[in-house]
Amino acid sequence: MHLSNIELYYTSPELIKDDVLILSGDEFHHSVNVMRNSVDDLLYVTNGAGSIFKVQILKVRKNELTARIINLLQFENKLNNIWFCIPILKNPDRLKFAFEKCVELGITNFILFSSNHSISKKAKPEKFQNTLLSAMKQSLRAFLPKILSSGFNDIIELDGSKILFDQNANKKFEGKLDFRKPTYFLFGPEGGFDQTELESVSQENRFSLTENRLRSETAIIKCASLLKI
Amino acid sequence: MHLSNIELYYTSPELIKDDVLILSGDEFHHSVNVMRNSVDDLLYVTNGAGSIFKVQILKVRKNELTARIINLLQFENKLNNIWFCIPILKNPDRLKFAFEKCVELGITNFILFSSNHSISKKAKPEKFQNTLLSAMKQSLRAFLPKILSSGFNDIIELDGSKILFDQNANKKFEGKLDFRKPTYFLFGPEGGFDQTELESVSQENRFSLTENRLRSETAIIKCASLLKI
Repeated sequence: MHLSNIELYYTSPELIKDDVLILSGDEFHHSVNVMRNSVDDLLYVTNGAGSIFKVQILKVRKNELTARIINLLQFENKLNNIWFCIPILKNPDRLKFAFEKCVELGITNFILFSSNHSISKKAKPEKFQNTLLSAMKQSLRAFLPKILSSGFNDIIELDGSKILFDQNANKKFEGKLDFRKPTYFLFGPEGGFDQTELESVSQENRFSLTENRLRSETAIIKCASLLKI
Repeated sequence: MHLSNIELYYTSPELIKDDVLILSGDEFHHSVNVMRNSVDDLLYVTNGAGSIFKVQILKVRKNELTARIINLLQFENKLNNIWFCIPILKNPDRLKFAFEKCVELGITNFILFSSNHSISKKAKPEKFQNTLLSAMKQSLRAFLPKILSSGFNDIIELDGSKILFDQNANKKFEGKLDFRKPTYFLFGPEGGFDQTELESVSQENRFSLTENRLRSETAIIKCASLLKI
C-alpha cells in the first residue's frame, strides 16, 4: 500500500487482538464524528510500535469502533537509540514547535530537562504528549514518541554517548554517527549551557551547528534535519 | 571581534557616512529606551548589506542617536543566488516560523507565492518584514533578507535553475548544489503541488526530503538546514 494522502489513526497495542482492533477515545471521535466513517469504510491505524494496519470497520458503537485488519505495513525505528535532550524553553510555543518538527523528522525519544540557564525549572512532559501523537500521525510514522523528564546531571550519568551542542565548539556536526549505541543529544536553552554543564561533556563530543547564533529550537530542528539514517 | 552574546542593531546604508552612523526608529527606541544605552556606550550595528560595525555613541537626541564607527566586520553572502519560494500557508504562524528559521539558517532571498492548492491566494510579503529583520539580528547575520511576491508561473519563467520538492520524487535532496548560479527552490503548500505545477519542472530537478510526509514548513526548514555552503 502507498501512504501519502491518508489519515492515520492510533490505537494502543492492547486494543489489537488477532485480526481485530478497537479504536476509542479521541481517535474514535475523529474517525466517526469528524470524518464521518461508518461500517465497511477503510482506515489506517498505527499501534505506535512499528506497524500500520489497513483495516475495515466492522461495527460502530457509542464510544468505540471495531475493525478487521486486512493489511499490515511493518517499519523499523532507525533512530531507536537516539535521545534528544531538550531544555525547558521560556516560550512554550517554541518548545512545542521543536517537538513537533523533531517527530516529523523521525526522532522518537525525548528527555525534557532543566538547564542552569533555563528560566522555568518545572518540566511538564505530559503537556507535549498530544503534540507528539499528532506529529506522528501527520508524518505517517509508526512509532509513538516517548518523552521523559530528567535533570542535566542525571542525563550525563546515563550509559551511552553524550553529544553536546555549543555555538563556540570547534567541530561542526555533520549528522554522521553510530546509530547502534545509545546516544544522548544535549541542546542548550536560551543563553546556552553554563561552564559546568559544558565541561561535563568532553571537548571531542561538543559540536557546533553553524557559525551563527541559533535559537534553541532552531539548533534542535537543524540537528534533526541533518541525521543521516 | 567575537560575536556571541551581543545585541545587534540595524540601520540602513543611507544613514551611514564616513565613520559616523545614525540609529533611528524602533532600533533607536530599543537601544535607548529598552536597553538604556547612552553616550560612550558601545553598540553593534549592521547595514544589512554585509557589514557589522562596532560603534560608540556620540550623541543621543529625541528620536535618533549618532555613533562613531570604531571597528568593522565584513561578510560574504554565500547564499546570494539562492531563492526560497515559499507558498502561502493556511496557518500564518507556521509561515512566520518558516521565514524565521530560514533566516537563522542563512537564507536571504524569498519569494512568497500562491500555489494552486494554497487556500489563501493573497500574498502579503510586507507582513513578514519584521520577522525577517528580527531573525537577522537574532542570528547575528549581516544581510537584510529580501522578500518578493510572485505567481508560480512567473517564477518558472525566471532565468536560473528551479528545484522543486515533492514527497513522491525519486531523488533525495542532499544539499549539494552550484551556488554560483541563480537557483529557485520551490516548496509546495498543504496538499502539495498539483500535477500542472509538478510538471513545469523537469523530473531531474524534482527532489524529496524524506520518505515521510512533512508539513510544508518542516520541508522548508529541513531544506535550509541541509544546504552545504
